[in-house]
Amino acid sequence: MAGTGSFRELGTPRQLLSVADLGGPDGIEQVLRLTDSFVEVSNRPIPKVPALRGKTVAWLFYEDSTRTRLSFETAARRLSADTMNFSVSTSSVKKGESLRDTALTIEAMGVDAIVVRHRAAGAPHRISQWVSAAVVNAGDGWHEHPTQALLDCFTIRQHLGSLAGRHIAIIGDVKHSRVARSDVLAFTALGAEVTLVAPQTLLPPSLEGWPVTISHDLDAVLRTVDVAYLLRMQQERQTEALLPSLREYTATYGLTQRRAELLDEKALVMHPGPMNRGVEIAAEVADLPNAVIVDQVRNGVAVRMAVLYLLLGSANVPVEELAS
Amino acid sequence: MAGTGSFRELGTPRQLLSVADLGGPDGIEQVLRLTDSFVEVSNRPIPKVPALRGKTVAWLFYEDSTRTRLSFETAARRLSADTMNFSVSTSSVKKGESLRDTALTIEAMGVDAIVVRHRAAGAPHRISQWVSAAVVNAGDGWHEHPTQALLDCFTIRQHLGSLAGRHIAIIGDVKHSRVARSDVLAFTALGAEVTLVAPQTLLPPSLEGWPVTISHDLDAVLRTVDVAYLLRMQQERQTEALLPSLREYTATYGLTQRRAELLDEKALVMHPGPMNRGVEIAAEVADLPNAVIVDQVRNGVAVRMAVLYLLLGSANVPVEELAS
Amino acid sequence: MAGTGSFRELGTPRQLLSVADLGGPDGIEQVLRLTDSFVEVSNRPIPKVPALRGKTVAWLFYEDSTRTRLSFETAARRLSADTMNFSVSTSSVKKGESLRDTALTIEAMGVDAIVVRHRAAGAPHRISQWVSAAVVNAGDGWHEHPTQALLDCFTIRQHLGSLAGRHIAIIGDVKHSRVARSDVLAFTALGAEVTLVAPQTLLPPSLEGWPVTISHDLDAVLRTVDVAYLLRMQQERQTEALLPSLREYTATYGLTQRRAELLDEKALVMHPGPMNRGVEIAAEVADLPNAVIVDQVRNGVAVRMAVLYLLLGSANVPVEELAS
Repeated sequence: MAGTGSFRELGTPRQLLSVADLGGPDGIEQVLRLTDSFVEVSNRPIPKVPALRGKTVAWLFYEDSTRTRLSFETAARRLSADTMNFSVSTSSVKKGESLRDTALTIEAMGVDAIVVRHRAAGAPHRISQWVSAAVVNAGDGWHEHPTQALLDCFTIRQHLGSLAGRHIAIIGDVKHSRVARSDVLAFTALGAEVTLVAPQTLLPPSLEGWPVTISHDLDAVLRTVDVAYLLRMQQERQTEALLPSLREYTATYGLTQRRAELLDEKALVMHPGPMNRGVEIAAEVADLPNAVIVDQVRNGVAVRMAVLYLLLGSANVPVEELAS
Repeated sequence: MAGTGSFRELGTPRQLLSVADLGGPDGIEQVLRLTDSFVEVSNRPIPKVPALRGKTVAWLFYEDSTRTRLSFETAARRLSADTMNFSVSTSSVKKGESLRDTALTIEAMGVDAIVVRHRAAGAPHRISQWVSAAVVNAGDGWHEHPTQALLDCFTIRQHLGSLAGRHIAIIGDVKHSRVARSDVLAFTALGAEVTLVAPQTLLPPSLEGWPVTISHDLDAVLRTVDVAYLLRMQQERQTEALLPSLREYTATYGLTQRRAELLDEKALVMHPGPMNRGVEIAAEVADLPNAVIVDQVRNGVAVRMAVLYLLLGSANVPVEELAS
Repeated sequence: MAGTGSFRELGTPRQLLSVADLGGPDGIEQVLRLTDSFVEVSNRPIPKVPALRGKTVAWLFYEDSTRTRLSFETAARRLSADTMNFSVSTSSVKKGESLRDTALTIEAMGVDAIVVRHRAAGAPHRISQWVSAAVVNAGDGWHEHPTQALLDCFTIRQHLGSLAGRHIAIIGDVKHSRVARSDVLAFTALGAEVTLVAPQTLLPPSLEGWPVTISHDLDAVLRTVDVAYLLRMQQERQTEALLPSLREYTATYGLTQRRAELLDEKALVMHPGPMNRGVEIAAEVADLPNAVIVDQVRNGVAVRMAVLYLLLGSANVPVEELAS
């Protein structure tokens, strides 16, 4: 399969909008191997390489996201790139500027990559059609969040060796989750078996073509999984009448302390953050030794270094020469 | 005329509050020639020079302005200056601190230049009386926005060779536009002829002393101009009863697709941004080949590099030695 | 006393949560002597040293504070550290994330020090128990603000030579002031005599154990002091019925022009800022030659350089070698 569809071998990749842009297992594995190098860089006393010196990475964030923005910002800084922060709350977008004009304006100031978060699915894709800068999707509506999927794969690989043949349960509000969509694509591409566990109202209307199993019996699923991946439950779902109550949700679909005991002792507990302790995950469960939620955050920086390096730096600085 | 009033030859200039501070055509030309050098720097693989290493540029913004702030910030970074961001929305100004105390506080932290945007005309002038740091006006009320005028002059010169003898129409809400004020001063200083096209309610109460012609007949003017410069129409004007309706404004003063056909094929279409496509300018017109709106944004960075260099760096690093 | 309780000699200090963490007069003096070096660095043409290259300092601010944040940011930049800005207004804290999870998330991204401002007394202390990064308290509720106390000590020492035997009046809303608490601890540790001057409603309910004198007669106190330290009077106190009116407060406890004449000509006037000119301090008084309020701001940067250097850099770079 080498040569068909690898992220790197497509020449200079220009975008990461969906897990599909990675071109299948080879492309995903390539990013994960490169991430290994950047984990090593991150552990140095001075955790920096000059790979992207003179490059500028812009944030175009139409939704609040300190967590993801800081992760990309740290990644860019460790690669010696400059950053530019365009957040909608203090911008001319409030004055009615179109998405296209905003993107062209940012690009004209001299930007090499634009990292986009937007409420609307597809917004990063539109932007990539308008600009010649590289575009990274940092979350678009309920659609995708590919760097989250990459860091989740990396974290599972780090603890379990490989995803092939592993059983992963994704539990909770799948319908409104871009994380779930990207994770299903990436986990199954790497050979994992995925079960979605959610009430019917929180599953997408159609699951045709999703290579997943559905279950409403969390206790049964937990006994068989290598990874229990909890999704964030947003308070709003209750008022939207998708849930009778948060308390009832927790009783049926929360990873309570009792349920955590059903897990194999080597099984991982994961969450994309920010957590609602006491709702989708019990406070004590998030602190168990096999809960690797802080590792996910840590690995996120190295994964984003790998993605920015592949998009902007690989032509200039071979990875073997990433000396600081 | 050399020697009288040139921005540079005044010794070390300390401020750019108005186009008048540039000291006439010689001073403006000096900035434009220096901008040529910084356009070249901006096109390098690593678009940076060490000219302002160790200097700090602070933003003191009392109005939202991501666009202008990012342009100055990029300019400062390319000159290797540090930046400091004081925006009013998260500051002690909300706690009742006076403008003077805020300015003195910022300066005391070690700042070499303060870039000010303020709702009140004259605020940057007041600040320049209180501090010894250099002060740049990045827009004060309806008064002036001199770096916008410089980037507009540079963009016209880039496309048309020179402003001398050119006919420029400034169209729209002149009354509330600091861009219009600074542009009239700069365009006419460089020998252009300016016609203001606006309804009577959107012209300043007195135009005495303005070296301009007034017209209410956009079609007639468009047939004769080298540049059609559209001003942003703010929705608020309608509620203030200065306009019957935006739709009627567009019909009479908007650069519609039909009207754009009246323009000479070499005539430029310009706009300071952010655009209200469909109000003062038709969506299609903003994308015509002779619409140079994105060039204005791009040139803005190089013009601001020239201004910051003249205010902070020229004593130390001769422009001939701007090597990275 | 050498060897007992010095900030430096405790090995690598991990936190500055309270003036008490400085370990008494020796520890305070150590920071002040180091500050002398950083004042010198700040006066260089390029005011930077590489002492913290590769280190990252994060701001975790749960209250607006541009002034203190910019001071720390400037300090970090002059030490060549990187910075990361986590302010609550645009963060996942709004989504219900716990303080602990936020702190662990920031740390996981690779942070060496966390500078915390929080509405709740004790929040920085909690955080220091959860993370292994260094923690600096930049103001917690009504509790403490130790770097403010250090810069106040440094400013007094700069102008009066020493604090030993000096008489310092702290005037105003002591009850709600973290500055007052930290200042009392630091001033008295260095041998000054402190008098609190405030209405009964603005004094803490119990002053047991505070080594201070209380007075309600500002005129009498002013005649005897070396320093008149005014606290900020917040408008809210009036609506909370702790004050009859601001006007009456000013009449009884404000440093009016008339009262300023009671001061010895060498006595200093100080204020932590932002000032309410006309309330706790007359506009003219804040501009007197012996008002050193701007010096306090300037010294704040050097003091914070010293604190960050002691927490993060002293093991690697001896202070004698702080060459740029």
